[in-house]
Parts: sequence; C-alpha cells; structure tokens
Amino acid sequence: MRHTARVSANAYEGLKARLGEVWDVTKAAYLLSWDQQTMMPPRAGPVRAAQLGTLSKLAHELFVDDEVGRLLDRLDGFEAELPYESDEASLIRLARREWEKERRVPTELREAMARTAAEAYPIWVEARQRSDFSLFRPCLERNVELRRRYAACFDVEEPYDALLDDFEPGMKTAEVRAVFAELKQGLVPLIAEAAAIEIDDSCLRGHFPRERQRELDAIVERFGLTEGSWRIDPTEHPFAASMATTDVRLTSRYPEHELMGLFATMHEYGHGLYEHQVDPALERTPLARGTSLAIHESQSRMWENLVGRSRPFWRFFYPELQRVFPEQFSGVELETFYRAINRVRPSLIRIEADEATYSLHIILRFELEQEILAGTVDLATLPEEWNARMRDYLGVEVPDDARGILQDVHWARGSLGYFPTYALGNVISVQLWERIRAALPDLDAELERGEFASLREWLRENVHRHGRKFTPSETLQRVVGGGIDPGPYLRYLGDKLRELAAA
Amino acid sequence: MRHTARVSANAYEGLKARLGEVWDVTKAAYLLSWDQQTMMPPRAGPVRAAQLGTLSKLAHELFVDDEVGRLLDRLDGFEAELPYESDEASLIRLARREWEKERRVPTELREAMARTAAEAYPIWVEARQRSDFSLFRPCLERNVELRRRYAACFDVEEPYDALLDDFEPGMKTAEVRAVFAELKQGLVPLIAEAAAIEIDDSCLRGHFPRERQRELDAIVERFGLTEGSWRIDPTEHPFAASMATTDVRLTSRYPEHELMGLFATMHEYGHGLYEHQVDPALERTPLARGTSLAIHESQSRMWENLVGRSRPFWRFFYPELQRVFPEQFSGVELETFYRAINRVRPSLIRIEADEATYSLHIILRFELEQEILAGTVDLATLPEEWNARMRDYLGVEVPDDARGILQDVHWARGSLGYFPTYALGNVISVQLWERIRAALPDLDAELERGEFASLREWLRENVHRHGRKFTPSETLQRVVGGGIDPGPYLRYLGDKLRELAAA
Repeated sequence: MRHTARVSANAYEGLKARLGEVWDVTKAAYLLSWDQQTMMPPRAGPVRAAQLGTLSKLAHELFVDDEVGRLLDRLDGFEAELPYESDEASLIRLARREWEKERRVPTELREAMARTAAEAYPIWVEARQRSDFSLFRPCLERNVELRRRYAACFDVEEPYDALLDDFEPGMKTAEVRAVFAELKQGLVPLIAEAAAIEIDDSCLRGHFPRERQRELDAIVERFGLTEGSWRIDPTEHPFAASMATTDVRLTSRYPEHELMGLFATMHEYGHGLYEHQVDPALERTPLARGTSLAIHESQSRMWENLVGRSRPFWRFFYPELQRVFPEQFSGVELETFYRAINRVRPSLIRIEADEATYSLHIILRFELEQEILAGTVDLATLPEEWNARMRDYLGVEVPDDARGILQDVHWARGSLGYFPTYALGNVISVQLWERIRAALPDLDAELERGEFASLREWLRENVHRHGRKFTPSETLQRVVGGGIDPGPYLRYLGDKLRELAAA
Repeated sequence: MRHTARVSANAYEGLKARLGEVWDVTKAAYLLSWDQQTMMPPRAGPVRAAQLGTLSKLAHELFVDDEVGRLLDRLDGFEAELPYESDEASLIRLARREWEKERRVPTELREAMARTAAEAYPIWVEARQRSDFSLFRPCLERNVELRRRYAACFDVEEPYDALLDDFEPGMKTAEVRAVFAELKQGLVPLIAEAAAIEIDDSCLRGHFPRERQRELDAIVERFGLTEGSWRIDPTEHPFAASMATTDVRLTSRYPEHELMGLFATMHEYGHGLYEHQVDPALERTPLARGTSLAIHESQSRMWENLVGRSRPFWRFFYPELQRVFPEQFSGVELETFYRAINRVRPSLIRIEADEATYSLHIILRFELEQEILAGTVDLATLPEEWNARMRDYLGVEVPDDARGILQDVHWARGSLGYFPTYALGNVISVQLWERIRAALPDLDAELERGEFASLREWLRENVHRHGRKFTPSETLQRVVGGGIDPGPYLRYLGDKLRELAAA
C-alpha cells in the first residue's frame, strides 16, 4: 500500500511535469500570437506562421505521447481515491479527457490547421481592407476542408459537435439549436418593440481622439488587476490573452468616430480577470484557464454590459468621461447618455451591436457555419447568403464585404464552432448576475462608489479560481443549480427596454 | 547512383525539417526573452523563466536526438560531393559540428548550468545594489565549478578554449592572448598621449528628455532596414534580437543626463542589419544568424564608431541633432561636438568607455577569467585583484565593488569566455573598414549626404548574406585575406588621436 502510494505519487509528479512542459509550449505560442497581432513587424508573417505551426505540433506530440497514456493508466486507482474537486483528481480527469481526444487527431492534420490559419490571417487583413471576399475565399476553403477532416476524427452525432466541443466541452449542437430557437423567438418581438423607443444617441457620434480614448482605459485599474500583472495594447481586433495568471494582456481598438475603445476594454477586462483569478496553485497546468468560451464570454459581457452599461456604474464614471471629452459630454445629462449607450438598433457590425441584437448576429453565423461544414452552401455565393440573412433577421442592408462577411477574424483562424459561445455567454452572464444580485444586496451602491472588490471576489470564489477543474455544465450547475436558460437574459432585456420606453 | 542520390535528398530534407523545428523553438525563445525585457508585466518573471527553461530543453532534446546523428551519417557522401560554399554542404557541416559538441555535454550538467545561472542572477543584482562582492562569491564559485566540468567534456588544449568556442567557434585562447598582447602594447601609450589632448565635452552633459532622444532613432530608417521588418523599443540593457530576417527588434536606452540613446541605437542597428541581411534562402535554418559574437560586434562597432563618431556622418546629421536639442547644441560648433564624442579618457564602467580605453576593460576581464578557471587566483581577493589592474592599466581608482567587479552581468549568467569577443569585434571592425574604404572610394561623400546604401550593400555581399556558412576565421580570410590583426585598429586610433591633438 505504502509502495503503491509512492508509485502513484511518482506517476502524478511525472504527469504534472509533462503537462507543465506542454503548457509552457502552449503559452509560448500564445505569446507569439499576441505579438503577431500587436507588435510584430508585418513582413515577419510567413516565418511566424511556421513558428506557430512548429510549437503547436510539439505541444501536441509531447501531450499525445504513449508515456502520458501509461502515466494516466497508472493513476486510475489514485484518481478514484481522491476527492473529485481536488486539484490532483481534476488535473488527471482533464488530462485523460483531452489525451483521448487529441490521440484521435493526426499530428500532420493539427500542424496543417495551425499553419493554414496563420497563413490566412494576413490575407484576411488584406481582403478586409480591400473589401473583397474573393481574395479570402481560397483560405476559407482550405480551413473548412481541414475542419471537415478534423470532425471526421471523432464519433459524433453531427460534424459540428466536434468543432463545438473544442470551445464548449460537452456541449452538443442540438442543445445550442434549442437555446437559440428560444432566444430568437424572444428577441424578435423585443427588438421590434425597441425600434419604437425614441432615443437620442447623437452624443455618441463625433470625434474621439485615440489618445484620449486610451486615457479611459484606466478604468481597468479601478476594476482591479494586480499591478505588474497586465498590460493593454491597441490592435485590429480586440482580444485578451494570458501567458500566466500574472501575465494578462488586454487589447482594444479605438476608432475615432465613436466611443468604442472603453467598451471593448471593459469587455476584454472580463476575460482577463477570469484568467488572472485562477488559483495560483494551478499555474503551469492545463487547469489554469477558463473552463469554456461561453463561460469566458459570460465574464466579458458582464463587465461590458451588466456593469458597463448600468446606471450605477455611470453615476460613478460619467464625470470622468466628461473630463476626458468635455466638448462632447459637458452639456449632456447622465440620463441622456445612459439611454444612448443602451439604445437598441439593428446594425451591421457584430462587435458594435447592442446587447439585444447581438445574439441575432451570432445565430446567423451559427446557421451559416453548419451549412458551410455540411457543404450545403456554395462559398462563391456566401456573401450574398450573408447579406440576405442580415436583411431577413435584422432588416439591414450590407453595403460591402468588409462590413459583411469579412468583418470577423474567426474564419481566417479556422475557428468554426466558436461563434455560438458568444451568444451563450450573453445568456449565462445574466444567469450569474441574478445570483450575484441575490448574494450582494449592496452591489448597486458599491458600483456607484466605483467599488468593484466584492463583485470581483464573488467571481473569484464561485467561478474563476477553479480554472478548468469543472466542465462548463458542472460550473453552471454548481453556481446557478441548472443548465443554460435564456429566461433571465430575456427578462433582463425586457425589463430594461420597458423602462426605457416608459421614461 | 540515382537511388543513392534520392536517398540523400530525402535525408537532407529530413535533416532540414528537423533543424527548422529546432530553429523555430530557438526563435520562439528569443521572442519570449525579448518580450521579458521590453513588454512583459514584471510579476510574470518566475513563470517566464520556466517557459524559457522548457523551450531550451526541448530545442536541445530535438537536436541531440539519435535520429539527427543517423541523418548526418547518411549525408557524409552527399556533403562531400557538394561545393563547400553551397547552402546544403554548409548546413550539414554546421549541424555536424554542433551535434557532436552538444552530444558531449550531459543533460544533467546543462540543466545544472542553466539553473545555477538563474539562481545567481538575483543574488548578483542584490550584491551589486549593496556593492558587496562577498554576497556574490559563492554563486561565482558554483558557476566556475560547473564551467570547469563543462570544459572537461571536450578535448581542448586548455579549459578556456572550450568556453571561448561557444561564442567564437574555432578560436583558441592562445590566439586571443597574442592579439591582446599586441593590443595592450599599442593602446597603453596611445591612451597616455590622449590624456594630454584638451577636449571640452561639456556639451554632452545636460538634460536630454527621453522622448526627444527617441526621435533621433529615426536615423535607423536612414541607415536602412526594410520597412515592415523591424522595430525599436526601450529597455534596461540594450540588445538586438531577430526572430526572422524579416523580424529584427532593436532596443535602446535613454538616460536623460547624457546623449546615450543614439549611440546605443546605432550600435544595435549594426547587430540588427547583420541578421536582417542574411540570405533569405537560409531562413528557418541555423545558418540564419551571425557567424560569431566577434564578427557580430565588428558590425555594431562599425555603425556606432566608424560611422557614428565620424566627421562625414555628423556633417550630415548634426543639423538634425541641433533641431531636436536646440538648447543644448544650437551654440555649439560641429567641430566642438565631434571632438567631444571622440574624447578618450580612462573610466570605471566598461559600457560607458570610449573607443580606445574599451579594450583594456576587456583585457583585464580576459586575464582574470583564465586565472579564475585555472584556480590560480583566490576568489576572496578577486575585488582587490580587479582594482589593482584597473589602477595599473587605466590609472583609475575603483571606489566600490558596484563600480568595479560587480558591474557586469556575464559572470552571474555563467558566461565565461564571452568578454574577449567585444575587443576582438573592435579590432575586426577596422580590418573590415580598411577594405570598405578601398572598395568604396566615395564613402565619405556618401555619408555626408546621409547615403548608406553602398556601405550596407558591401556588408551584405561580403559578410551578412552568408550567415553561419563560414566560420569566423574563414569569414575573415575571405574578406581581408588573413586572420585577426590589431594593426589597422591601432593605426586608426593613432591617426584619429594625432589629428585631435594637432587641432
């Protein structure tokens, strides 16, 4: 027994050391990717693509090695004796799930996916600049073909399940369809009602110099991230990346004709805080990350919308906004501003969409992705297909590819199956928010004083610190006692819109 | 024969693919290290150290693998049939030399060296802050002991040869001793003469705001690096790093009490241009790098001193300096400025030393390193030994360890054998310069017009494009038709000082 325990402890240390190396290489690749989008001289693109391909291949090879399988086998009994929630059992459980998944994917395929995606990125940038989908189409074709081969590696009910599982472990396409059906049904009348609400949002149009927008990013310090653990840089398409819980990189963008940077920054802060508040004991293990993209998005949406478009937050922050942009806001009442940032109007660009219409942008992409994967839509006519549905779901006319099908980076990166997590994140954010409001009755007063510690701490305690110890559905079960439910989100939107209509 | 040729071609492609992966991991580690010194939030330090350790271990394991040895064996005949100067023969030759070298070092020893160096670094930082060598001595002892074990892995005439070979492949300690003996003999009287030359350098003291110093870095664009292939960032200790020939990162520093940034930037430009002008056909192979540290330093010194402290360059650039710092230079004649930046005066700190005294700082370190390695000097009395030689060679009194023996990071990092390459670089820079002047009779006139293309092209054609295809001594033989010779460097300094004395 004593001998067996020692053997198991050795096997566990061996597994942890190996997973630590895999994680180091994975995080190195994150840095190369962050650098590619923020710092890298553009001519380095092709070599960077090769470097990312190699790191991805090495991380994969190190992980899917037979030795990892042998260690996992030797740890069967050890795991069974540990509490399910222990760090050790959770690490073994996650490693086993991912090892069995990754073993199904040939290294050659994985490398081709990484390389093709890296090559596609600069082409997408150029295609978007020129607003010409045909430039990008060959890249999309290659990415889709590789994703089909990828999906074929798994026993799944439908190919899309395999893609979705990478971002939302355990989630099935059929569940997403059901949630989205309910969502669409609830949203369409809400958006129609919203169209009738008179809101003057002219204060949001004007000239917002980039450097002054960047001043507002200081809100992130007030929200709270440990000093010396993060940075913010401008980029084309905002994202958050972490190379360690102590190395959180937010990015934002600052078009000068609108007040965009601040909301993008608050959004990315939500992602960054999740990674930052993972238990430091999980550092350099694959547990040191958010459990899924939908749960991740629930965090970014919470800070962007539930905090960042709320009255209490703006009672605190509006004077600061007025100080930075006096020409724009010194003569504008707080209530006018509040109504403006909560205006619901169908629009062209997903990342600029309001809280209510946003999910329809996602539903459109989710539908198209399934059809692209199934080959039931011709890629040559994809822009027309896109434009037709934009007209149908949102009633807007798409003037060009740049503001249509080329607006998102995801398909350039080969990330099919990623989009649904955004709308699921919206839904989950309000499910969590209901719990938070019940647990923190003074939250509004705290937000009005610019105090965010108890919100941050609640998130740490209930969600963040666990990293990937629990699956997304286990996480939801533990926190809200059930599965994904669009009810709270639709109620929240309905209440908000009715209140705006009544005023 | 046809079959054999195909087998060899396959083996060559196999070797090239493996070396490409090793190179990708190596370059990824360069990026992590660049990021650590320019962008990384400071709290990420410990995790970054682990990430760098993992990448270094993986690159080593991938390279020393038996499979690489088998491929090299299969390529014996193939290599013999290729021209020595071909890319293929050069890659095989370099890989064989490095594989045989790396295989001799036990992994355990390599890890101990890396770990001990990492542990020594913060202790050196503290010892330097407290100016107390005795704190650092145990670390130096451990580093030296490991370097002795490292040297014992090789068949060398004297242990120092093994250390030197890592930085200057093929160079022997005895050669360095001979070069440095001639150098010292020539420098001591030159420096004594220089002390008698009256030079007013008060214009170089004052207040030089950082942002305005950074404006001057635009000189790098004029010197010439392909747009979209490089960037400059501030750092604590300037360096140049390249992640690809198309991804050159210069760093500089800008203390505000002196005009330092510009010279540091010109220096790092020299390093960066070397990496940038390697033949793109060598990209993603271990040939895509400067051939040795001395040849590298000859490039940085050339741009910093032979261009950057010359009259023709300043005839072109002085108006720009006056525009950026009018308070400082509008009333100062070009000739006064020229004399100031070329003033020779013994001083305490190596990295602040002038062109002439610099090499004596190096000779002192080279002598001590040999004695430390041989155990013929007592580490307890090393500071006194240092101070005595500073008095003897440069006539300066060392006030404390911080400005004496603790000023450089190299021994904390375990890098014995590195220092000599700095002085060898000075010497080589002028050997090359004599050839350049012969080949480009209009160079002075071009520099006066701010034209650097023919200089850049000469360097590309004769030195840079070859990367590591030739050893440093082969490189010198090809370009100057001989070995390292301090004659040109001493003549250059002598001429310059005599001219300053005559004015």
